Amino acid sequence: MERLSGYRGGLKKALEAEGIDVGDFVSILTEGFEYQGILMPRSELEDEWHMVLKLKSGYNVGIAFKPGETIFKRLREAEKPRFEPPPPPVSKEGLPRVSIISTGGTIASRVDYFSGRVYPAISASDLYSVVPELSEIAVIDSEILYSIFSEDLTPKHWVGLADGVAEKISEGVNGVVITHGTDTLGYSAAALSFALQDLPVPVILVGSQRSSDRPSSDAALNLIGAVTAAAAAPFAEVVVGMHTTTSDIDIAFHRGTKVRKCHTSSRYAFQSVNAEPLVRYSKGKIEMLLSDYKHRDPNRLLSLRNNFEERVALIKFHPGFNAELMDWLVDQGYKGIVLEGTGLGHVGQICFKSIERAMREGLIVVMTSQCLWGRVHMKVYRTGIQLLKMGVISMEDMLPETALVKLMWTLGQTNDRREAVELLKMNISQEFSPRTFYKSEGMKR
Amino acid sequence: MERLSGYRGGLKKALEAEGIDVGDFVSILTEGFEYQGILMPRSELEDEWHMVLKLKSGYNVGIAFKPGETIFKRLREAEKPRFEPPPPPVSKEGLPRVSIISTGGTIASRVDYFSGRVYPAISASDLYSVVPELSEIAVIDSEILYSIFSEDLTPKHWVGLADGVAEKISEGVNGVVITHGTDTLGYSAAALSFALQDLPVPVILVGSQRSSDRPSSDAALNLIGAVTAAAAAPFAEVVVGMHTTTSDIDIAFHRGTKVRKCHTSSRYAFQSVNAEPLVRYSKGKIEMLLSDYKHRDPNRLLSLRNNFEERVALIKFHPGFNAELMDWLVDQGYKGIVLEGTGLGHVGQICFKSIERAMREGLIVVMTSQCLWGRVHMKVYRTGIQLLKMGVISMEDMLPETALVKLMWTLGQTNDRREAVELLKMNISQEFSPRTFYKSEGMKR
Repeated sequence: MERLSGYRGGLKKALEAEGIDVGDFVSILTEGFEYQGILMPRSELEDEWHMVLKLKSGYNVGIAFKPGETIFKRLREAEKPRFEPPPPPVSKEGLPRVSIISTGGTIASRVDYFSGRVYPAISASDLYSVVPELSEIAVIDSEILYSIFSEDLTPKHWVGLADGVAEKISEGVNGVVITHGTDTLGYSAAALSFALQDLPVPVILVGSQRSSDRPSSDAALNLIGAVTAAAAAPFAEVVVGMHTTTSDIDIAFHRGTKVRKCHTSSRYAFQSVNAEPLVRYSKGKIEMLLSDYKHRDPNRLLSLRNNFEERVALIKFHPGFNAELMDWLVDQGYKGIVLEGTGLGHVGQICFKSIERAMREGLIVVMTSQCLWGRVHMKVYRTGIQLLKMGVISMEDMLPETALVKLMWTLGQTNDRREAVELLKMNISQEFSPRTFYKSEGMKR
Repeated sequence: MERLSGYRGGLKKALEAEGIDVGDFVSILTEGFEYQGILMPRSELEDEWHMVLKLKSGYNVGIAFKPGETIFKRLREAEKPRFEPPPPPVSKEGLPRVSIISTGGTIASRVDYFSGRVYPAISASDLYSVVPELSEIAVIDSEILYSIFSEDLTPKHWVGLADGVAEKISEGVNGVVITHGTDTLGYSAAALSFALQDLPVPVILVGSQRSSDRPSSDAALNLIGAVTAAAAAPFAEVVVGMHTTTSDIDIAFHRGTKVRKCHTSSRYAFQSVNAEPLVRYSKGKIEMLLSDYKHRDPNRLLSLRNNFEERVALIKFHPGFNAELMDWLVDQGYKGIVLEGTGLGHVGQICFKSIERAMREGLIVVMTSQCLWGRVHMKVYRTGIQLLKMGVISMEDMLPETALVKLMWTLGQTNDRREAVELLKMNISQEFSPRTFYKSEGMKR
């Protein structure tokens, strides 16, 4: 690699004068403060007046260079973090068996110290070695199924993932853990919730918001919690396990159909929306938070239903929305449209003609709300009534992302419109909360 | 209206046998419970086995009809709610002047007792009469600008709304209140935040989640709080005032660029995202919650900048997303695309080719996150770096909805690409929070 990669101009010259290179442990004295840390490389996108230092805390800090004022000192060459080779698989008598399937993402990634960037790199067995506690909880076998960023996962990957889980289950494991990038973790969790019916054991998706070589990483605890749940928890559903707070203490397991990434970067980014988390992991213990769940039963026969129809679109309505976009989808041979409407489940009248056309051409159009929290309720205002009359189906309190996955899944199960509508209105995997007719609308809001 | 509108079959016959019609105050005895309330009409969409009763609490309850078991009794004809005619405008010496502009929505609506549905009907002066406290706070003039559901408002209505506010301000009022449907209230608030520059007085958008004739309505308090703030609060910004909790006590005023409807039906549906509310109204008092705001100054000259380019789309990325949709937008002559990406601001590589083409054809493409909370940060992963290199602009911690409005507004101000990019990166109306370079990324997350 080029010396002082990414540094330019006066700053580069000043660093060179002190014999400093990227990777060195340095002291920087500027504006009365002293910073100590590893000099990180910069990218060509950034200005030439800042240097980036990785502090002992693991955080990167940007420091402005003041020519003639800032003082540099090379203390020593940086100690690069080392990853131990994985230990040979240990088969302890009596321990449950858990499979870890790796699909990529931050939990399976590390910072590349020569680019300063995060790459998906660690294999599942590396993770096993990085978190030695795992060997006390279960006998683990691990497999790298994919090694891509989760934004590049498509419904085709859901098919392969469901196949992979089904295979592990057929081998008799006590539970399956899937490490997954957090970007589309919610979508995959919903997909597996529909694809893996009659699960005998838990399937736990787990990610991390900070790469595992950072002191603030949530990867280790998330993995320990996930493996513990997979090994011994009493439920047999698809869940996502992530931190509940900024503290490295508790993990909440959210149902795969009700979970959403609600923060770009915090540890507690994942939340159950219109539902409570199913399980909590705290201090080594698994606690069921809800009483109504599918129980673990090794004798139950998994039913694998992993067909997904990709010609389904998620459309977010907004002022100025161009309804011809829906006509384009119809022209492209789309089979279904999930509307992310406003409020209780509305779109402007400007959309009505295109929705009616989509209906005539046999598409299924369903309604969710961009509010995310609360329930779609289309009998309150005239707009909703009109949309219902056209045949738009209310998705109740389902997340738009889950509704997308469910519509893809439904149209992957049947070509019969009536049957598809029936499936959509059926609560397959806790994707919506049932409403009780006797409870008043007002109180439920 | 037809007798027993919407009721059919055995239930209709049983009601007829007791001489009961819609609107009557009745007793229903079934399964050991007695319900008393007004019999509401039903819609043709509903089954024939339930009747709907409006209880004294104002809530509607659905009750199943059990032939041969359920006992009906007509107690009296229902008392229909009455709306007093508005009092003549009172001009009290020394009171501030506030204009109320009505655009429709629940706050300006009432239940039609013969359809059981909610219609936008009450005029602003009706509201004045329904909430007599207003006459103690300010001398109010009111105007019905629009009377449509807010999902039917378009950027063209934002232009008219900004014109309307500017006119009132030119007449020297102390503040302007806009009553607005909640569905697209956030979008309109963002639009006015950009369109009304250098405001001399506060502009308060206000809605309600329950129509004003329901006992649980939030309309009265929201209006009182809004008028109080418009009349006398020390700030001069565009804000949205809505309940903070389920209790009818406090109102929070959120900056127009940072507010979002986050629940389909609760009173506290509106939240400041990646920001704190600016103002609180509690027990008749206005309290500023932030110290950094634009102060009221009647001598400041309003600058009206209400051009919006409608050929801007908001696209939510998801697994299975069809990137050709972006090509279609380019073909349609679109000028800008707001991506609602995943996580820190990503879309799948499948989109890269179409984004590059959009760039070549002169469109502006900006990135927000479907997480909603947190900041877009495109220098952490390779995907983000690649998108930045293509020219995609990070919208920092801006809401996707606000980014849409800002891009429409920006392209309404200039045709010059460089100037547009400059405006997008400038913090015009607190639409993003500034980031301080010295704070580490990690700690800010």
